[in-house]
Amino acid sequence: MGAMKGVILSINPSVQIVDITHDIPPQDIEAGAFDLLASYKAFPASTIHLAVIDPGVGSNRRPLLIQCAEQFFVGPDNGIFSWIYEREAKFRATQLSNEKFFRHPVSTTFHGRDIFAPVAAALSTGIPIEEFGHEVKDVVRLESLAPKTAGANVVEGRLIHIDRFGNCITNLTRDHLREDPSDSRPKLVVNDREITSFHRYFAEGENDESELFCLFGSAGFLEVAARKSSAARILNARRGQSAVLISGHGD
Amino acid sequence: MGAMKGVILSINPSVQIVDITHDIPPQDIEAGAFDLLASYKAFPASTIHLAVIDPGVGSNRRPLLIQCAEQFFVGPDNGIFSWIYEREAKFRATQLSNEKFFRHPVSTTFHGRDIFAPVAAALSTGIPIEEFGHEVKDVVRLESLAPKTAGANVVEGRLIHIDRFGNCITNLTRDHLREDPSDSRPKLVVNDREITSFHRYFAEGENDESELFCLFGSAGFLEVAARKSSAARILNARRGQSAVLISGHGD
Amino acid sequence: MGAMKGVILSINPSVQIVDITHDIPPQDIEAGAFDLLASYKAFPASTIHLAVIDPGVGSNRRPLLIQCAEQFFVGPDNGIFSWIYEREAKFRATQLSNEKFFRHPVSTTFHGRDIFAPVAAALSTGIPIEEFGHEVKDVVRLESLAPKTAGANVVEGRLIHIDRFGNCITNLTRDHLREDPSDSRPKLVVNDREITSFHRYFAEGENDESELFCLFGSAGFLEVAARKSSAARILNARRGQSAVLISGHGD
Repeated sequence: MGAMKGVILSINPSVQIVDITHDIPPQDIEAGAFDLLASYKAFPASTIHLAVIDPGVGSNRRPLLIQCAEQFFVGPDNGIFSWIYEREAKFRATQLSNEKFFRHPVSTTFHGRDIFAPVAAALSTGIPIEEFGHEVKDVVRLESLAPKTAGANVVEGRLIHIDRFGNCITNLTRDHLREDPSDSRPKLVVNDREITSFHRYFAEGENDESELFCLFGSAGFLEVAARKSSAARILNARRGQSAVLISGHGD
Repeated sequence: MGAMKGVILSINPSVQIVDITHDIPPQDIEAGAFDLLASYKAFPASTIHLAVIDPGVGSNRRPLLIQCAEQFFVGPDNGIFSWIYEREAKFRATQLSNEKFFRHPVSTTFHGRDIFAPVAAALSTGIPIEEFGHEVKDVVRLESLAPKTAGANVVEGRLIHIDRFGNCITNLTRDHLREDPSDSRPKLVVNDREITSFHRYFAEGENDESELFCLFGSAGFLEVAARKSSAARILNARRGQSAVLISGHGD
Repeated sequence: MGAMKGVILSINPSVQIVDITHDIPPQDIEAGAFDLLASYKAFPASTIHLAVIDPGVGSNRRPLLIQCAEQFFVGPDNGIFSWIYEREAKFRATQLSNEKFFRHPVSTTFHGRDIFAPVAAALSTGIPIEEFGHEVKDVVRLESLAPKTAGANVVEGRLIHIDRFGNCITNLTRDHLREDPSDSRPKLVVNDREITSFHRYFAEGENDESELFCLFGSAGFLEVAARKSSAARILNARRGQSAVLISGHGD
């Protein structure tokens, strides 16, 4: 990662570089995709996001430059940006085929340094998109953020992320709650365990550290948390597991 | 954290952002307070410190802007800055009540992004303090840095921090040592274990990796260390435990 | 580390600071040396690299300023920069003896804050090298990057680094492979285990997660990897262990 910053500053010494996260587990595309999804809207127009989680580096997976939401995203075509396209609907993908903008010789193991960083830096100096390559349509996508099924009372979602606190984040949003939680007594079922406490914030409610509760997190998704403990450990939860929201079973 | 940087750069693109640490355990206010205490004096006047360790986010704990030591501190009223006030004595606390400077809608789970970051960024553009809210006097404070008792020969302190190397940092300073260590043969007692070696620096003295020794660390506090090992593990130490300094028991 | 940034910005508010890595284990000079070696070439001329891995802080190990490869390196004389000198051959080392550029009082435990950071910052403002101290010749060096023996068919190298993915990086380069891998059927022997798969990139070849393979990494060294697993764990490998490359045993 240090080398990428060196490459960027060699091309554009006046660019402002900020680190988004240091907590992505090795090669975990979904975790990177979630962090990007959760943070991109906070950045100003014309921000260039550079993603380096790239288990397919060296293979024929394509290098991409995405325009979406008035921002830019540079990285591998492995789905890491796909939840952003899914939310925004409108985007344009350019395959990076113009090797003029690469760092040579291009290694087979570190395209972050040799392709993505120099392209991002060149882009930051005002090079037009068209010079970097040609448009592509068939980009790789991760499994959709949409729940599997959504009936009147039951919505079958899944865990899309487990954060470093052990909070288990689902793909369910406020739109999937039939009514106001206090009226409808919703419950969330994960790993055969029913969570019936719905809080507005982390510190609300009982002090029992092992009590599980649901709340809507900062990216807008329903998540399971425990006060001073890891909900993921208590639930023995893994990403991808089912998370079923059942509403309106009040008396 | 990435989102906070996005919010700041959206408001003030020319601000210089630096990360202080990535090593604070989740929700550990005291660890954050110690790192701030250990580093704030190295920063130039008008620096804005932004703290995001905020287990009470969403509850009625107040958001604050502190002026102290010619610098600014923005974050939750949970004591995270209180060791700085305690050392500096003079400070002014403003409760952030002017929602004009918040990012809307304000989430109940991420005030770092929605309150602290936008306020810090607005402050960096030159907005006067008075516009952010009103002065408050009754700020939350962590347990004082002062030792519990300080007699002529015995000072009862405590462990206030355990760092990532396992060094156990007390609230004892050079002022609590009666005389020069080489004369008075001081000892420090932690968890029933007496540490009698006092070093001037980490690499001084024996090569025995498991030997415990005391030295004054870079923030001015007496700490227990082990050469290439974790003193905390050897001592089975936890923050808050008693650390008693006994001086002048020479022959 | 936060304090070091504060010191730098106090002296030169307009300097651009970038973090190279947060993954170096405590006091691990070789790991720091490897990361520096792997990244320095990507940085522009006149970059100032600041190294803070300093287990000998406070002892009489010397503080240094190195000029090498049109860049600068500031840190302790513990060998952390020595693989860069070894590769570049030409360098100049200055012992930092002019205390005018130090932060006072100089602690015995944190020269990063009190010596290296202020010197690096002063250097960034254009102070000539000669003002910081006097040239020294006998700098500390880590064990050489050269293999122990290099015969026609057998080159005895060693593991010089194990990265956070568990990849085991040797001191062997393409120059040590007698012929093209596909012709000569080379094998690498580590801990009595023969690795005979040579890949061009991480995602090449079988999907068996526990299969070990060799490839040339981004810093140009031959390394042992496993697809979605830690090669270091599979091999029970430790830095410093022998890694023997045997070439030309084809039929």
